[in-house]
Amino acid sequence: MQLSRKADYALRAVAFIAQLEKGTLASIGKIALARDIPREFLAKILKELSRSGILVSFQGVTGGYRLARPPKEVTFLDVIEAMEGPVRVNLCVEGCHCDHEDGCEIRPFFIKQQEQIVKAMKRQNFGSINGMRT
Amino acid sequence: MQLSRKADYALRAVAFIAQLEKGTLASIGKIALARDIPREFLAKILKELSRSGILVSFQGVTGGYRLARPPKEVTFLDVIEAMEGPVRVNLCVEGCHCDHEDGCEIRPFFIKQQEQIVKAMKRQNFGSINGMRT
Repeated sequence: MQLSRKADYALRAVAFIAQLEKGTLASIGKIALARDIPREFLAKILKELSRSGILVSFQGVTGGYRLARPPKEVTFLDVIEAMEGPVRVNLCVEGCHCDHEDGCEIRPFFIKQQEQIVKAMKRQNFGSINGMRT
Repeated sequence: MQLSRKADYALRAVAFIAQLEKGTLASIGKIALARDIPREFLAKILKELSRSGILVSFQGVTGGYRLARPPKEVTFLDVIEAMEGPVRVNLCVEGCHCDHEDGCEIRPFFIKQQEQIVKAMKRQNFGSINGMRT
């Protein structure tokens, strides 16, 4: 039950991009270096974040990436779901996969945990991240 | 970021065993049938739960499994950690794996989520599970 390394890297990359001066673009090399992310893996992640509408990419020598919207309008949930799909803390949260839904002892617990973590991920955005560097 | 199927099955198996009359043993076949768990996978899980001190196994034709301690003394965290090792909602929760600990925007969020989910898993035991059948 752990966030994937891919989603962790995506959060770190977006956090870095979110701190750039308005109008500045971040190159793959710059992000990789600043956040210790393997370059090829990062390139794949940034492409997916662009396809998901979180980043905008600009081609060319002076190209790079910027956020598609203001940092405060990009949440941790947006980035995590772009990498992993819908957050489901247990398989059965979406729908019971066995025949014991009525008397289930497990599902109610995970539905509650799911609600709490999704709420927290939705509340946390890149305009208000803790310890944000200026 | 999802509980493994193995841990989910383990929770369901322990929930079933926790509801047995005191002194009753549950066979692999009975648990597998009652909770729709593939029998071979279940056998592996029950062995690991015994090794972790959560279950006690009895050999022989009339053998089977029972809890090693009262249901209220077995928590969801015990079972999940027996299957997956220590709960870490993100890699960096235990210790920062990059060079940005001082100004990290990501780690504080996951440390908080970690604390909350571990607390909830520790509080939830098999003597007080929701919807418990009698």
